Amino acid sequence: MERQDVVIVGAGIFGLSIAYHILRENPGKHVTVFEKFGTCAQGNTAKSAGAFRNVFSSKTNLLLADTSIDFYMDIHRKGYDIGLEQAGYLWLMSASQIERNKTVFEGMMKEGVELKFFEKEDLKKVMPYLNTDIDPDDEEARMMGLESIEKGIQGVKCGFVDADKLTRFYEGEVKKMGGSVIYNTEVEKPLLEPKEKLGLECEPLIWQDVEITGVKLKNGHTVNADKVIIAANSWAPQILDPVGIDCMIKSVKRQMFVLRNPKLNVLTNVHGFNSMGVLPFTIFPKASVYIRVDRIEGSVWASGHEHFGAPYCFEEDPKATDEYYDYNIYQVLRKYMPIFDGLKASNKWAGLYDMNTIDANPYIFETHNVIIAVGSSGSGIMKADAVGRITAALYAGRTEAELYGGKKFKVSALGIKNRQVDAERFIL
Amino acid sequence: MERQDVVIVGAGIFGLSIAYHILRENPGKHVTVFEKFGTCAQGNTAKSAGAFRNVFSSKTNLLLADTSIDFYMDIHRKGYDIGLEQAGYLWLMSASQIERNKTVFEGMMKEGVELKFFEKEDLKKVMPYLNTDIDPDDEEARMMGLESIEKGIQGVKCGFVDADKLTRFYEGEVKKMGGSVIYNTEVEKPLLEPKEKLGLECEPLIWQDVEITGVKLKNGHTVNADKVIIAANSWAPQILDPVGIDCMIKSVKRQMFVLRNPKLNVLTNVHGFNSMGVLPFTIFPKASVYIRVDRIEGSVWASGHEHFGAPYCFEEDPKATDEYYDYNIYQVLRKYMPIFDGLKASNKWAGLYDMNTIDANPYIFETHNVIIAVGSSGSGIMKADAVGRITAALYAGRTEAELYGGKKFKVSALGIKNRQVDAERFIL
Repeated sequence: MERQDVVIVGAGIFGLSIAYHILRENPGKHVTVFEKFGTCAQGNTAKSAGAFRNVFSSKTNLLLADTSIDFYMDIHRKGYDIGLEQAGYLWLMSASQIERNKTVFEGMMKEGVELKFFEKEDLKKVMPYLNTDIDPDDEEARMMGLESIEKGIQGVKCGFVDADKLTRFYEGEVKKMGGSVIYNTEVEKPLLEPKEKLGLECEPLIWQDVEITGVKLKNGHTVNADKVIIAANSWAPQILDPVGIDCMIKSVKRQMFVLRNPKLNVLTNVHGFNSMGVLPFTIFPKASVYIRVDRIEGSVWASGHEHFGAPYCFEEDPKATDEYYDYNIYQVLRKYMPIFDGLKASNKWAGLYDMNTIDANPYIFETHNVIIAVGSSGSGIMKADAVGRITAALYAGRTEAELYGGKKFKVSALGIKNRQVDAERFIL
Repeated sequence: MERQDVVIVGAGIFGLSIAYHILRENPGKHVTVFEKFGTCAQGNTAKSAGAFRNVFSSKTNLLLADTSIDFYMDIHRKGYDIGLEQAGYLWLMSASQIERNKTVFEGMMKEGVELKFFEKEDLKKVMPYLNTDIDPDDEEARMMGLESIEKGIQGVKCGFVDADKLTRFYEGEVKKMGGSVIYNTEVEKPLLEPKEKLGLECEPLIWQDVEITGVKLKNGHTVNADKVIIAANSWAPQILDPVGIDCMIKSVKRQMFVLRNPKLNVLTNVHGFNSMGVLPFTIFPKASVYIRVDRIEGSVWASGHEHFGAPYCFEEDPKATDEYYDYNIYQVLRKYMPIFDGLKASNKWAGLYDMNTIDANPYIFETHNVIIAVGSSGSGIMKADAVGRITAALYAGRTEAELYGGKKFKVSALGIKNRQVDAERFIL
């Protein structure tokens, strides 16, 4: 393969957004995306909840998401089918949660985030099947630490998006601009070579000057490139550790369960939150258990996770287990929405979050001719457009990126050395 | 085993220094150190170069080392045999290296570090077997990027220490104060338990309140403790990942080679650097190749490493290879000191550095009732006493630690959230 200007590793939404924005800014450049799976978005992108929100406590996450959502809404309006439905996010919160997050919500609103507050009585009217009041005599609920729902907080500029279709939008545009996306081709690691080769098998030697000159594929071939960009999510450490680049992320598993039952049809007939009359992406007051209606499939997705103690562990093919649903998510769901009582998961999958464990904002930085864009921390879909723009700016050597809508963003703020972000508190 | 006040994981020099200082401050507390190996210092402590220096570009590293060295010198004076020899460190530097590090040396001297500068001619007089001038017609040397030695910079408050004996000093004191050190007992992970147990196998569940209540041993037993301290160097991520605590380090292998030959006897007869007439710990101007005389064994240790590209990889039992010496270290040694010509390594070993890849200063922080003291970054021996004091202060809930000699140190400076250190440039 001929020398590339840019090789991008990973055809998830980060990798393809990056390819799109680099090609948009640099028409004619040779940009190739390598992907181990057979098509795009097959890593952790497609395993996501397919949702978007601009509700973040970190101003950086907020800005990245808010401008990316504007871009997604724009292409949606232009007629691209990306499955966008502005259904909203609905946090059902206990009195103590509201108290804890009061200043956070105030901060968001100051940044322009549109939030709507619903009193308990309003919630009951709209969703008569919602159990807002935990019975003080319910021993199970006490043991589970369940609290009554006091208020609903709706993020308005939030909703559902088809992560697969959105990624395909970027893929299509990349191809139109002449970029290559090569599937079923796994990158083993960046190609680390001595500047002056000796032809020895044990090169590079410690006294040789080295540089990263491209990528080594698992099929044994090498591809030279002026710049290598790693957008491989949880796979990034597997690719970068072998050449001594720390991409600072840990993988943590999340499991998703699909429920189908006529009893759940009421969730597509909820009025007061959005024009579609559908239940927003709804988060219950315990263990971030959430549900998300899939109107097309006529199903409901459910997930949730512990707030501390989930193992950091990379797995090539993480699996969801029925026990995880039965003992964990289901127990919370049935208490707050008894219509879930007795329902088993009809389908399930698991993916990995590539967590930035320090602040849960993305990392975008360059070292030794490699640009790394990782740390989506479970909210990569909704920030991917901004990540693409910032990475393209870093590639071009600019200190500022222009996000969709014109806002400027200091590229180094997402780097390691001069990082300037606040820690995210709203991780789902 | 009865409930402990403190369980420390790892009987390397960090773990035992921590145990020592906690017991010193809290006589009578039940402190137990667990160690997977059969005796202390058998992890990466004993695999170190057994050397100490206060020559660091990071003011924090400098202070931690400087005060720890004072403590080591004090116990040495008091008659403990810790193999301490103040032989000095000698950086043999090229003109370009001196230029690059000029302000760094000035900064160190401002902090009170005693440095001595030797001109090339002085070095030649003291070490006639030192090849200071690289022959411009030497094609090999050109290919290797070797530069002539311009100056020697000696760190005076530097030298050799027997890492094993020093660790045994701490171990002995810990035992005297009633602490337990239990060998051949590997900790699997911190014990994460629900505050209210249900007796289910799949606990903790995501809706349970959890806490770390001790440690789980690999032999299946559990030990309860009010506080768990992880001082397990490269093993720390193996122990902490399973409970979702990111200790922020990467492991990188370093290899050490032992050379024995009568030709090398001249290195124990070098006058001008120290009272023992021994060659200081000497670093050559390429790939941090260094040698360290072992007077007792009558041998010379040699090591070195690439400045970029060494893989991050945890290995239970890393191995040194003859090829690494032959192609890498030997090639540099023989050019600068032809007395090494033809010498093969008679012994070798490898260990891991637990690298803080961002700033190469230690991490000391607490999260969820676990204190983590890692990131020695290859210079843990010489900072261990200060690390013990700072960890003991964190354990006691103090915001300031008192280092040996009375200097105060802000505990949070080595934490994650309010970290306040500058990046180290002098990593060997």
